[in-house]
Amino acid sequence: MSKINKVVLAYSGGLDTSAIIPWLKENYDCEVIAFVADVGQGEAELEGIEAKAIASGASACYIEDLKEEMVADYIYPTLTTGALYEGKYLLGTSMARPIIAKAQAELALKLGADALCHGCTGKGNDQVRFEGAFAAIAPNLKVIAPWREWNLRSREALLDYLAERQIPCTASLEKIYSRDANAWHISTEGGVLENTWNQPNELCWVWTTDPEQAPDQSELVTLGVENGRVISVDGVAMSPYQVLKTLNDKGAKHGVGRIDIVENRLVGMKSRGCYETPGGTIIMEALRAVEQLVLDKESFMFREELGLKASHLVYDGRWFTPLCQSILAAADSLAQGVTGDVVLKLYKGQVTAVQKRSTNSLYSEEFATFGEDEVYDHSHAEGFIRLYSLASRIRALNEKNK
Amino acid sequence: MSKINKVVLAYSGGLDTSAIIPWLKENYDCEVIAFVADVGQGEAELEGIEAKAIASGASACYIEDLKEEMVADYIYPTLTTGALYEGKYLLGTSMARPIIAKAQAELALKLGADALCHGCTGKGNDQVRFEGAFAAIAPNLKVIAPWREWNLRSREALLDYLAERQIPCTASLEKIYSRDANAWHISTEGGVLENTWNQPNELCWVWTTDPEQAPDQSELVTLGVENGRVISVDGVAMSPYQVLKTLNDKGAKHGVGRIDIVENRLVGMKSRGCYETPGGTIIMEALRAVEQLVLDKESFMFREELGLKASHLVYDGRWFTPLCQSILAAADSLAQGVTGDVVLKLYKGQVTAVQKRSTNSLYSEEFATFGEDEVYDHSHAEGFIRLYSLASRIRALNEKNK
Amino acid sequence: MSKINKVVLAYSGGLDTSAIIPWLKENYDCEVIAFVADVGQGEAELEGIEAKAIASGASACYIEDLKEEMVADYIYPTLTTGALYEGKYLLGTSMARPIIAKAQAELALKLGADALCHGCTGKGNDQVRFEGAFAAIAPNLKVIAPWREWNLRSREALLDYLAERQIPCTASLEKIYSRDANAWHISTEGGVLENTWNQPNELCWVWTTDPEQAPDQSELVTLGVENGRVISVDGVAMSPYQVLKTLNDKGAKHGVGRIDIVENRLVGMKSRGCYETPGGTIIMEALRAVEQLVLDKESFMFREELGLKASHLVYDGRWFTPLCQSILAAADSLAQGVTGDVVLKLYKGQVTAVQKRSTNSLYSEEFATFGEDEVYDHSHAEGFIRLYSLASRIRALNEKNK
Amino acid sequence: MSKINKVVLAYSGGLDTSAIIPWLKENYDCEVIAFVADVGQGEAELEGIEAKAIASGASACYIEDLKEEMVADYIYPTLTTGALYEGKYLLGTSMARPIIAKAQAELALKLGADALCHGCTGKGNDQVRFEGAFAAIAPNLKVIAPWREWNLRSREALLDYLAERQIPCTASLEKIYSRDANAWHISTEGGVLENTWNQPNELCWVWTTDPEQAPDQSELVTLGVENGRVISVDGVAMSPYQVLKTLNDKGAKHGVGRIDIVENRLVGMKSRGCYETPGGTIIMEALRAVEQLVLDKESFMFREELGLKASHLVYDGRWFTPLCQSILAAADSLAQGVTGDVVLKLYKGQVTAVQKRSTNSLYSEEFATFGEDEVYDHSHAEGFIRLYSLASRIRALNEKNK
Repeated sequence: MSKINKVVLAYSGGLDTSAIIPWLKENYDCEVIAFVADVGQGEAELEGIEAKAIASGASACYIEDLKEEMVADYIYPTLTTGALYEGKYLLGTSMARPIIAKAQAELALKLGADALCHGCTGKGNDQVRFEGAFAAIAPNLKVIAPWREWNLRSREALLDYLAERQIPCTASLEKIYSRDANAWHISTEGGVLENTWNQPNELCWVWTTDPEQAPDQSELVTLGVENGRVISVDGVAMSPYQVLKTLNDKGAKHGVGRIDIVENRLVGMKSRGCYETPGGTIIMEALRAVEQLVLDKESFMFREELGLKASHLVYDGRWFTPLCQSILAAADSLAQGVTGDVVLKLYKGQVTAVQKRSTNSLYSEEFATFGEDEVYDHSHAEGFIRLYSLASRIRALNEKNK
Repeated sequence: MSKINKVVLAYSGGLDTSAIIPWLKENYDCEVIAFVADVGQGEAELEGIEAKAIASGASACYIEDLKEEMVADYIYPTLTTGALYEGKYLLGTSMARPIIAKAQAELALKLGADALCHGCTGKGNDQVRFEGAFAAIAPNLKVIAPWREWNLRSREALLDYLAERQIPCTASLEKIYSRDANAWHISTEGGVLENTWNQPNELCWVWTTDPEQAPDQSELVTLGVENGRVISVDGVAMSPYQVLKTLNDKGAKHGVGRIDIVENRLVGMKSRGCYETPGGTIIMEALRAVEQLVLDKESFMFREELGLKASHLVYDGRWFTPLCQSILAAADSLAQGVTGDVVLKLYKGQVTAVQKRSTNSLYSEEFATFGEDEVYDHSHAEGFIRLYSLASRIRALNEKNK
Repeated sequence: MSKINKVVLAYSGGLDTSAIIPWLKENYDCEVIAFVADVGQGEAELEGIEAKAIASGASACYIEDLKEEMVADYIYPTLTTGALYEGKYLLGTSMARPIIAKAQAELALKLGADALCHGCTGKGNDQVRFEGAFAAIAPNLKVIAPWREWNLRSREALLDYLAERQIPCTASLEKIYSRDANAWHISTEGGVLENTWNQPNELCWVWTTDPEQAPDQSELVTLGVENGRVISVDGVAMSPYQVLKTLNDKGAKHGVGRIDIVENRLVGMKSRGCYETPGGTIIMEALRAVEQLVLDKESFMFREELGLKASHLVYDGRWFTPLCQSILAAADSLAQGVTGDVVLKLYKGQVTAVQKRSTNSLYSEEFATFGEDEVYDHSHAEGFIRLYSLASRIRALNEKNK
Repeated sequence: MSKINKVVLAYSGGLDTSAIIPWLKENYDCEVIAFVADVGQGEAELEGIEAKAIASGASACYIEDLKEEMVADYIYPTLTTGALYEGKYLLGTSMARPIIAKAQAELALKLGADALCHGCTGKGNDQVRFEGAFAAIAPNLKVIAPWREWNLRSREALLDYLAERQIPCTASLEKIYSRDANAWHISTEGGVLENTWNQPNELCWVWTTDPEQAPDQSELVTLGVENGRVISVDGVAMSPYQVLKTLNDKGAKHGVGRIDIVENRLVGMKSRGCYETPGGTIIMEALRAVEQLVLDKESFMFREELGLKASHLVYDGRWFTPLCQSILAAADSLAQGVTGDVVLKLYKGQVTAVQKRSTNSLYSEEFATFGEDEVYDHSHAEGFIRLYSLASRIRALNEKNK
């Protein structure tokens, strides 16, 4: 293997990636560039992050604001498929990984780096998502995954490692839960959740009000939808990220968007997580409500199939593959015309579409009324049923004639 | 067409089928046998129904209790597929039709009748479900669908028709909502719901408490699951129908199981309905929770595909077809081992699995702990990822080398 | 129903549509416009057709050359999905119907006609395909299907009907086989084929040499493929229709492209047909051969799923639906990059790809060779397998520990 | 890792596994048991194999005849799904691996061995298939894959290795093609095939006559099929393996069953192979022909989906998984009733079903004849089409009214 001179690291400012910087320099004798993607993880996470990276030994720190692009080009395409991993999970972490990895790999190519590095553990999905994107975008670059290489096995070991090198770090020794946040969601794993027979406690939830503590008064919100995307909230036009942010606030207040699941990781084991996706849950409900009006029976079914497939592709880090692009093309085609308005009620953990309309609606009182003579004739039903069940009748007659 | 001598009618005791009895006798000059299936529509519906049928002119009335069979042999097989029509609807009416039609057709064959009759309208799904079952079970029998034949077009016309014949009927002139109930659910259509921009009002809901009026105190219930079926509630073993009845009460109290959707009918138009499935919603959540522990990634995905297919087959009245039987066989195979316990929280319209365990769980703290050395080695991940993304890497290298 | 003034008829010049012209005029008291689509059915079919239409009573006859458009915009999009109806049928009749019906409906709208008419029988698929297109393109126009209305039940009756009206007709009384031809294929039904236990005889085949009589010498042909379309034959660039015509000649000579199947019609019954698709069979083999080089495992599988779905949609006359467009969008996305050269051997009824290459090939001797160190490491396989079979191992350990 | 005392090796008698025996003993200091599965690879392969194993250092050699079980319990279940990997490959090697690995693992458990060993290379599929089965059946046993461990990199190295130890070996230095054979097929890889632009030469084919050299006279064979399995050849009842053997002879004579494909391996790269499956190709054609008569449209389509899924599961070594069992259960359900007779013509590389019949046929001249009045009414078609295309009509009317 050839010598590595410059590596670009996906840097979060947390304990792990802080330790990775000196570790890379010592073990690979190379320059380390920190790359920070702002995907809406929160201002607290980003504050002073450049200085922190430099203090840890990075030669430079690049921060890129990817929030609008992530919502517009990664989240909405996925939402038009209706993807819910294993029927529940809104794919919050999964959708953020490809955009981060792509920006990181492109920076590395631009800077002439020879390697890419991430701080994902060796038992999780994220390593696959990062490296799947790297393979597609920068196939020549070496990938370094310290958690699969080093002998540091605990927070204590990491803190000691930093202390020995006199690198400042505010991380505490005790950290019960493992978390990941972006504009779309926050996830929580570990601690009490490790036993599936334990209920989540209030420490498992970060963004959202406990439904049992949420306002006793329900709240309505009206969303404008155009071609499968929410474009306005209560009549105010907004960018994709602004819509999400606005709905995160509303949803969180009412305890909307909590799920607690055991899921199959790509790497063959199961894990349990609590996810909070307040705004996303509202958006999903709104899109599905407009689809109810617009999609015919076979299209609706295919959209559900696309969602099932996309849920695995996105979860499995397959974003930058011809298959994923093909599925997104199909979903985008179906989303044309998914346009209308939805009123949703938020109440103690639930979001429910209570009013919906669309100029493309295949449901219409008018048709239902004049339908009898102009569009639909009761007598047509007989012919339909006869042909629809003809194979059954022939089969049954066959049996009787045996 | 040959003369019809005896017809077996799916009789409900309502206005429509009450008028059908004399209409059949007058128009087909035939004997009419009333058939009543007890699928849990409620005691009020069944009280005095035999006398009513005779008073309307039926020569006999057969009542069959199908409740346990319906839950055990129609509902649970469907549930193991996870079928939710268009992502939401728990198929309450759809699952009851095949068992009713089958019992009716078998009675007709036993009695030597020449025809079968139902009171379904010509714009709905139920006519297809009844006649699809008839075609498979009694392909030689003639089917009479009065709503596609007669000129009676309103409740008023039906009431007049009965009054002229001095047939007693307690039905009122005004009936805003159209309903169907069985042990699993009650549906409501019509009235204010005909405009999708209208919210449902409280008349649209029959069984369940309004979530906003439901108890402020949440309630826990523990279900025992064996091979995809709930066999006990809070530690008490129960028959399938008893489980459902018990959970209907609990769910209804907490406002669980309401949905309000616009759906694609099989006959090409859309309709809007409010459905209440309190117990069923709890059972579905419980089965899905145990599956989270037991099914591996690919099995889970296939179960979701089976559910998608089954939802359409059941909705479309395809129960008695080789395809439906094949899909149920696949789902039954996967359901073996879906065994465990689930604790669910009922609260203001929501049901949430908060604790779950299974002796077949693929999740296990123990594995997660000793996993490192015995079952899972961090370093395996690198090999996995390299091969998993090999095609992406080759494709990208190809592009760069062009 | 309102009075019909002008109807546009899909006119073929055959016995049925010749009789339909006077029948329409007599029964609907309307002007009849003949519309002839040239989809490659052959010059003999088109010769003198305008005069024939006028002689039958049409007020005008419009002939439109749709050959290139059909191959480019209907056949190739379908081919990129790989659609083979029930595993065998290359959809020759099915793909021609939407383009004919669309051109016919557009002509009717342009001419201000109030109705559309076709000569399809009431037991076949084509009526559904025509009327499905009409519904999507000219939903307001009335549809007339004489075969479902009139009492003419035999060729003799039709010939008498024309003779009584002194309309010249060259059709003979005896016509054993029913046929349909276009640039892509010719189909044969009826006669000896009506018993599935009969072998087809030589009258069942029209275009192709009997493989047992085909040249003893095999022949090679080289096709250039670009993004899922054949663009050259033996190095000569050609239009889509020219490619097809050239390969029809070559294939027919060698007896390539015969199939004899029993298929499920959309209308619930089965039928048996012999189909000849000489050029099409060669093109399919060529496209599949390039795909073998270019598509990765998951993409290939999805392409097969798309083909399965598309085969039913196209067969069922669903071309002008959002679902079909969505599936074609997905297939088109995958077809980008399906580019390369294929040498095919034609020999006594078979076509076999014997050489293939592509600049986008994921197969490469070079990778296979230097692969060991640069792209693929044998040791990666262990990690891959361990994770790939981890769920199996955990499940089995579970069982043993019970 | 704990000490290994006894290892069971899947032994073929070839160069690789001959070298593995001493290598295991030297490197693991353990007893080596040779296990030979007779899956129809040929008598030449099996002759003297026990003596050879002992001469190489094995302490014992177990030979198990798995031919009938393989055809009955592995091949036919797969065939009922219609599985063809990537549209072409009849899965010959894939179907043999699970039964071999299962018998080997069960022997190891019986003998109290601590490890399992196979001779598969580190770039192929077979290692995954073996180890996938091991994980499911003997999850506690250690797996040794010498090709991923040792430094022997060529035939020369292996021959030297054996010579140094004075172990007799008849293998030659030059071996151009890599082959695998069992009762179902023989595969050939390597040599001239490594460049996809090369045609296969006659050395690439082992069992089958070159179609261009095959008899000029076609031959007919009649197969009896019952519930998806061939039970007789030309009227003679035979066991599953006997049927296969008989048809292998007939097919090989006529050059039937050759394919030459580039396929996606599970491990992310592509490979090219020539496969010969003479009898299997005939059986597949026969089963599909009976299905044409028996399966309705939706069942046929689902059978194709099952085949697509099964092709990947079987290829990928997923036999012993709940998913594979579920899919086989679905296919088995559909295969009930796939019963009838088929006459097939063998001619110069092709097999074609030319006659077929079934008592369960949904095709029937009788229905086609009396069908008009009793089972099918032309006028039913109108109703069918109106409802079938209702959503299209409503959508189009919507557009026009905008």
